[in-house]
Amino acid sequence: MFNSLSIAKLINGNRRQFFKWGLVTGVGIAGTAVGLKALQPTQRKIVPIPEIPDTTKIESIGINPLAFARHFDYGKIIEENGRKIREFRVEARTTPVKLNEAVTFITWNLNGQVPGPTFRATEGDRIRVIFYNKAGGHSHSLHFHGIHEANMDGVRPVRNGAVFIYEFDAIPFGVHLYHCHIAPVTRHISKGLYGMFIIDPKEPRPPADEMVLIMAGYDVNDDYKNELYAFNGLPDYYMHHPIPVWKNELIRLYVLNMIEFDPVATFHVHANMFQVYRTGRTLNPTEETDVITMGTAERHILELSYPYTGKFMFHPHQDLIAEEGCMGYFDVREKTTS
Amino acid sequence: MFNSLSIAKLINGNRRQFFKWGLVTGVGIAGTAVGLKALQPTQRKIVPIPEIPDTTKIESIGINPLAFARHFDYGKIIEENGRKIREFRVEARTTPVKLNEAVTFITWNLNGQVPGPTFRATEGDRIRVIFYNKAGGHSHSLHFHGIHEANMDGVRPVRNGAVFIYEFDAIPFGVHLYHCHIAPVTRHISKGLYGMFIIDPKEPRPPADEMVLIMAGYDVNDDYKNELYAFNGLPDYYMHHPIPVWKNELIRLYVLNMIEFDPVATFHVHANMFQVYRTGRTLNPTEETDVITMGTAERHILELSYPYTGKFMFHPHQDLIAEEGCMGYFDVREKTTS
Amino acid sequence: MFNSLSIAKLINGNRRQFFKWGLVTGVGIAGTAVGLKALQPTQRKIVPIPEIPDTTKIESIGINPLAFARHFDYGKIIEENGRKIREFRVEARTTPVKLNEAVTFITWNLNGQVPGPTFRATEGDRIRVIFYNKAGGHSHSLHFHGIHEANMDGVRPVRNGAVFIYEFDAIPFGVHLYHCHIAPVTRHISKGLYGMFIIDPKEPRPPADEMVLIMAGYDVNDDYKNELYAFNGLPDYYMHHPIPVWKNELIRLYVLNMIEFDPVATFHVHANMFQVYRTGRTLNPTEETDVITMGTAERHILELSYPYTGKFMFHPHQDLIAEEGCMGYFDVREKTTS
Repeated sequence: MFNSLSIAKLINGNRRQFFKWGLVTGVGIAGTAVGLKALQPTQRKIVPIPEIPDTTKIESIGINPLAFARHFDYGKIIEENGRKIREFRVEARTTPVKLNEAVTFITWNLNGQVPGPTFRATEGDRIRVIFYNKAGGHSHSLHFHGIHEANMDGVRPVRNGAVFIYEFDAIPFGVHLYHCHIAPVTRHISKGLYGMFIIDPKEPRPPADEMVLIMAGYDVNDDYKNELYAFNGLPDYYMHHPIPVWKNELIRLYVLNMIEFDPVATFHVHANMFQVYRTGRTLNPTEETDVITMGTAERHILELSYPYTGKFMFHPHQDLIAEEGCMGYFDVREKTTS
Repeated sequence: MFNSLSIAKLINGNRRQFFKWGLVTGVGIAGTAVGLKALQPTQRKIVPIPEIPDTTKIESIGINPLAFARHFDYGKIIEENGRKIREFRVEARTTPVKLNEAVTFITWNLNGQVPGPTFRATEGDRIRVIFYNKAGGHSHSLHFHGIHEANMDGVRPVRNGAVFIYEFDAIPFGVHLYHCHIAPVTRHISKGLYGMFIIDPKEPRPPADEMVLIMAGYDVNDDYKNELYAFNGLPDYYMHHPIPVWKNELIRLYVLNMIEFDPVATFHVHANMFQVYRTGRTLNPTEETDVITMGTAERHILELSYPYTGKFMFHPHQDLIAEEGCMGYFDVREKTTS
Repeated sequence: MFNSLSIAKLINGNRRQFFKWGLVTGVGIAGTAVGLKALQPTQRKIVPIPEIPDTTKIESIGINPLAFARHFDYGKIIEENGRKIREFRVEARTTPVKLNEAVTFITWNLNGQVPGPTFRATEGDRIRVIFYNKAGGHSHSLHFHGIHEANMDGVRPVRNGAVFIYEFDAIPFGVHLYHCHIAPVTRHISKGLYGMFIIDPKEPRPPADEMVLIMAGYDVNDDYKNELYAFNGLPDYYMHHPIPVWKNELIRLYVLNMIEFDPVATFHVHANMFQVYRTGRTLNPTEETDVITMGTAERHILELSYPYTGKFMFHPHQDLIAEEGCMGYFDVREKTTS
């Protein structure tokens, strides 16, 4: 349900889209629940990847890091006035998440998942994000990194129950992010309102086994420090569910540091080196290392390939962070032709 | 007034300059107060910039971030033995500064301003900085980054009431800094004794709207943590007084992280990307991003141009730092021909 | 003495080497004490360097930062099946170290020294590290950075009294490190179980005065914060014993940040600029600056040359870290032909 203020805001900001999408006072987004279910994720399998256990199917709502890592949301493509538009629909929600045996944490999230969906587009696409704040009580917003107009910058609050439609061009290519920009931003981000926004160059990067790794922290007791950390939402998940990859396959990691309260996080892989494409803004790597320092909101493409099979750790080289949940394994296997 | 020790130090270090400048025991710098007033700042307006409100005129002593950002102190040029010398005169002072409605902070500063003046020269210039410690009670010094002799390194204390003349060549071109190097250095810097030192390449960089942004913190209660932060001296100043810039104009930011106590600060601009010239040591950018991690004393040239009008934030992406004062707006306007 | 479990582990992991080195139950590494003494360090003096005082001779066991900086352990070269193998032997020990007049700290270390020996090899060499845990009570391990097989990754505990033989190829060239990887890793590293591992490119870098500088912290009171810091093991050592170098000589620093608990350390030299070879993975520098931010486990080659004689400081530009022991001087002298 929309209140009149939010509707006014919506109409002011995006009058054309508003009517196009049939939004009228008292109705809500036309079939929001249906719309979200209908948005079938299209997993781009550029290269074949090892089979992932049944328990990690995409359709399971919630936090599923193994499925999340390789899942990209390309939105729904529509044509409007001869231009392709990628439309994404997200709802801010409030959901308890069981972080481990002892701790359940009330997240603020998008579509019930932390991190939010990985939006993916090609440079030059028109992006439309229909953001419905159903989080209950708090105002939220979506602030995208990338180049866009001031009124699409997502610094203005979208009240509970309101909708805002962000629309902008996907420029420039690279690895970007989005997050809630309502103060205190540390709180809104660390509660779970963030995600990755990948813009592919028009000439796509070479085929690879692509995956997203987002480092984040959980301030469980509201003391402005993180007690738990995670890759892709769940502490220690990849320790117990290593990410299967194939030996000698090019692996392309989209890595984002979204940890609040700690000034930086490093990202380290064991027994290997990676090529660095800073902010994903280059087509050739500019650096090779196995430890990279990333401030909050920094993100890079890191490419590597494992010459040996076996289990290999990845984690920040700040061991206090790693040992509280931000640690995982790649399980490197002989490539099969299945 | 000079005591004999400081005079001896002065004579030893800079005998030639000492007599040239007519400094003798019991006299002080020849007309220091007059000399400082006579040092007319020469604002280089390479490109026309939007008009700045009257309240921000340069001549107003104190902290005036809007005037400070685009003000460069080129010193007074003198010829000596056929060589051009840029002479700067600065006094260390102790001054209370009203940081916000509730907090007044006793700064140690140069010429009554925090940050100190932005010294600017061209590579190869001879630099002479006449430093008069009038801060009252404490020893101070000026340690410059850049290449120079050991006795000009500014690690030796200049006692209250004493003068020291630093002299060195302006090499190499880049963005450098200066600060007091008396222990505890954290305290002497965070109290306000720091500033930027820009050395232009002999072949100047392309015309741009150039400005300085120095991030710093205030440890108001001496607990080795910062309670307030600021760009160019005053918390939240640019939130209430956005920096006017023109759309599609090349903006060249000289950004320095001078925050003590926090290990790093990131610098982020909204809705745009910037080109990075690390330490200002290159003539071509080596990186493009919108978030860059800077350790204390790191400084870079960042270039960008806004394709849209409106207000766009800049701040560290450590939101706790941003929300305590280190946050501002660019107000991007259509270019006028005034 | 070996217990049966450790022997089993040893035989499983490295059966061939085990017998080759004559290790049998109840005997221990064949003459460990003798073997270690026999391992004569081979200091590669590519360029002549200033004479170092007698008190800093290599053979003195313990922490001797002045000797340590320029000492490289090339191991013992053996031929096996037509391939050159560099064999290193190290013992984990528990040793009290006097950090300053007031503080004695129980280190866990390799061969009685903190940092451990700087292992050095050429790209493509076969490396064999015979690791004997004699630290008393705790399990330890050696985790090397660089590319290697999963079972050589050093994440598995080597029990007290046990031996493990790590064997892998020295790839790729660059500055790497090794450290204990037993949880809590912060504790095992900060107690002293770390060192540098340099892999030279096959075509060696130009001659230079090469030295190692490892920044580390000491958490003296187990509060997860460092009370003391050091370059190469001893707080403030290089303040009282400046490192002698020659004017206009190319100095090649291998710098590693091994500080736990603090998220990053910067490295700064006074009155000079350095060329950066990130992770030592390039043959040409990619950056020039005088302050570089390094996360824990980051390491770089930094090259510089002093045009002036005198004493010049180096330290992190986080002054709290510098002033608690991580600070030193280069003593730049006129080059002599001695």
